[in-house]
Amino acid sequence: MINIAVLGYGVVGSGVVEVIGRNHEEVMKKAGDEVRVKYILDLRDFPGDPYEDRVIHDFDTILNDPEISIVCEVMGGIGAAYQFTRQLLEAGKSVCTSNKELVAKHGAEFLELAVARHCNYMFEASVGGGIPIIRSVNTALTAEKIEAVTAILNGTTNYILTKMGSEGTEYDEALKQAQELGYAERNPEADVEGHDACRKLAILSSLITGRNVDAGEIYTEGITGITGADFEYARLEGMVIKQLAIGKMQEDGSVLAMVAPFMLSAGYPLAAVNDVFNAVLVTGNMLGDVIFYGRGAGKLPTASAVVADVIDCAKHQGRNVICIWDREAAKVAEVADTKRRFFLRAKAGARRAVEETFAGGKSVVLQDGGEAFGFFTAQMREKEFNEKCALLGDAVLSRIRLL
Amino acid sequence: MINIAVLGYGVVGSGVVEVIGRNHEEVMKKAGDEVRVKYILDLRDFPGDPYEDRVIHDFDTILNDPEISIVCEVMGGIGAAYQFTRQLLEAGKSVCTSNKELVAKHGAEFLELAVARHCNYMFEASVGGGIPIIRSVNTALTAEKIEAVTAILNGTTNYILTKMGSEGTEYDEALKQAQELGYAERNPEADVEGHDACRKLAILSSLITGRNVDAGEIYTEGITGITGADFEYARLEGMVIKQLAIGKMQEDGSVLAMVAPFMLSAGYPLAAVNDVFNAVLVTGNMLGDVIFYGRGAGKLPTASAVVADVIDCAKHQGRNVICIWDREAAKVAEVADTKRRFFLRAKAGARRAVEETFAGGKSVVLQDGGEAFGFFTAQMREKEFNEKCALLGDAVLSRIRLL
Repeated sequence: MINIAVLGYGVVGSGVVEVIGRNHEEVMKKAGDEVRVKYILDLRDFPGDPYEDRVIHDFDTILNDPEISIVCEVMGGIGAAYQFTRQLLEAGKSVCTSNKELVAKHGAEFLELAVARHCNYMFEASVGGGIPIIRSVNTALTAEKIEAVTAILNGTTNYILTKMGSEGTEYDEALKQAQELGYAERNPEADVEGHDACRKLAILSSLITGRNVDAGEIYTEGITGITGADFEYARLEGMVIKQLAIGKMQEDGSVLAMVAPFMLSAGYPLAAVNDVFNAVLVTGNMLGDVIFYGRGAGKLPTASAVVADVIDCAKHQGRNVICIWDREAAKVAEVADTKRRFFLRAKAGARRAVEETFAGGKSVVLQDGGEAFGFFTAQMREKEFNEKCALLGDAVLSRIRLL
Repeated sequence: MINIAVLGYGVVGSGVVEVIGRNHEEVMKKAGDEVRVKYILDLRDFPGDPYEDRVIHDFDTILNDPEISIVCEVMGGIGAAYQFTRQLLEAGKSVCTSNKELVAKHGAEFLELAVARHCNYMFEASVGGGIPIIRSVNTALTAEKIEAVTAILNGTTNYILTKMGSEGTEYDEALKQAQELGYAERNPEADVEGHDACRKLAILSSLITGRNVDAGEIYTEGITGITGADFEYARLEGMVIKQLAIGKMQEDGSVLAMVAPFMLSAGYPLAAVNDVFNAVLVTGNMLGDVIFYGRGAGKLPTASAVVADVIDCAKHQGRNVICIWDREAAKVAEVADTKRRFFLRAKAGARRAVEETFAGGKSVVLQDGGEAFGFFTAQMREKEFNEKCALLGDAVLSRIRLL
């Protein structure tokens, strides 16, 4: 019998209990032993809940119970969750979490502690919901030098951009629809400004470099400035617009890490990833491209990933599973130094100035483009692009990178 | 130091040696120790090869060397490969293989032996080349009741069907192009008749049922009867034609396992998987759909998967990694009992007979359809469909299932 505790009986926490209950037999077979939820820690009581009798309010009961060897931290936040996780790992208890904020911030620290205490810190559910991307990078694509991850990691922004692209909806309206469907929060900032994707990318980038990539060092740009017109210009050129998270090893050993909207060819594998779906394209030096695709969020998919971690911990009791993410900081490349093509939308009157400034690029005019036109530059350094845009002043209405 | 041996210095074998050589540092980090190719078993000599000095011709040297704990069986076939694998596992040495024929036929037997001898039999490379589908099913999607796998498992047939669909090429011409590009063998039977996909599906179906699914029990149909006209009818209905391998749990606990061409909606996730790419869509009861996509073949991707197995074996020396695939036979469902819609192409003169026989279906006529027309039936049992087709005799020119 493997006794576990669940910290937080919210959406994911109740999902974890449900997955273990409904798939009891599968979980037992894969773990090699019965898995039982002994405690559920929450501030609230849950009268009438079938697991009512497991609910406790005192963390120390869990910490001090020698029967508990695996704990699911699905409470979120970085205050109590941090303290609890540290204490549990120090006590040699494995922790499985869906808390991407905490993993991004303290992953390296917790992994180091888990090694020292012969237990595990696992976080499959922190990136891509139920898509097994963390375990694939850690334990499946192990013979690879991973050169890049290119990913759609936020379902909310992907839904909004899909709506804008397919129905010509403007941003505000698409956001409203996403909120009505429960895909976006009332305060959507964490999603639409890219912070959520940034944390997930910090985790993935740390795993591919083996060193710590601080979320604060990741260039992050949201989707609030994207307009319906941008999609029309993209379509004319056979492209779509997606919010991408990119982690890419550079020749000098640094990692380029950025979250931003990109125009990409409609034939590119991620271009067809629509609605709330997530996808991670991993490029390995032997393997080429492999794509992992699925629902990146949701109670049961996320809980399923947490329970998969529980099973992995159960199979490795007393032994640490290798996960290379050192505390030493990775060298993060300057986005300004990277080279690519750019799209810009500018006032119609500035067409000649734009064409002169970005010689070698290409203007595109929409039939009902009004007082604006679109322009695709040749390949250039981002720094140079920004400098040239600055020369054009307020004639430039928007800019989007090309992949 | 972990010493390994490679059985067979052909395409995959030389790939294994190359991956370990080129990604030496990554492999060492992930395995937690240096991995060294001590022996390469082959009947031939390789004068001038950088690994010339490792080549041996006597299997017993490997079997009797206590330094060798992991062996890559990448020689293919089910004769010597079977004997060698059995002897190695009996000696407690782990075996990693890309040999799908052998895995499909003797996987359950070898896994049982590996449990008894505290070693491992791993076969990531046997399905989907470098796509980590075996490890994902075994060690990542462990909290799931897997309800179905729906997959494109053969790159050759997918290339041929992609050509036929996108360029209107007829089968013979598309096959010829595939052969010229090295995607199809001179004798293409194993691919185009579905035998290759059938073996891979036997492996995947065994893993999702936990019992042995014999390849001989899998309904297997090739693509040689598909015509350009079939693609045109499909297109008119917003569909494409793909060779699918389907393993699906039935309510009575049996598994439906079949390899055949299917018409599927162009919006279905696998419809956009083109050329030589493979993809596996796994449906879990908590997770919903997750898709794994990538190159399903090729020297280095396949070798990378073998080396990932070597690393996993290295991390689990002396301990068996749970893989549930019993020798007991799974109950395989009768394809004739399944219900679905069907497409058929028939002689123009039989239109009235077809419409009467399949009341509730729909005729489709191509502008240049010549002496034939297309017909989409309502949902019906396959048995009933076949009986009705038999009544129509030689008026029926071709039939394709709808997904």
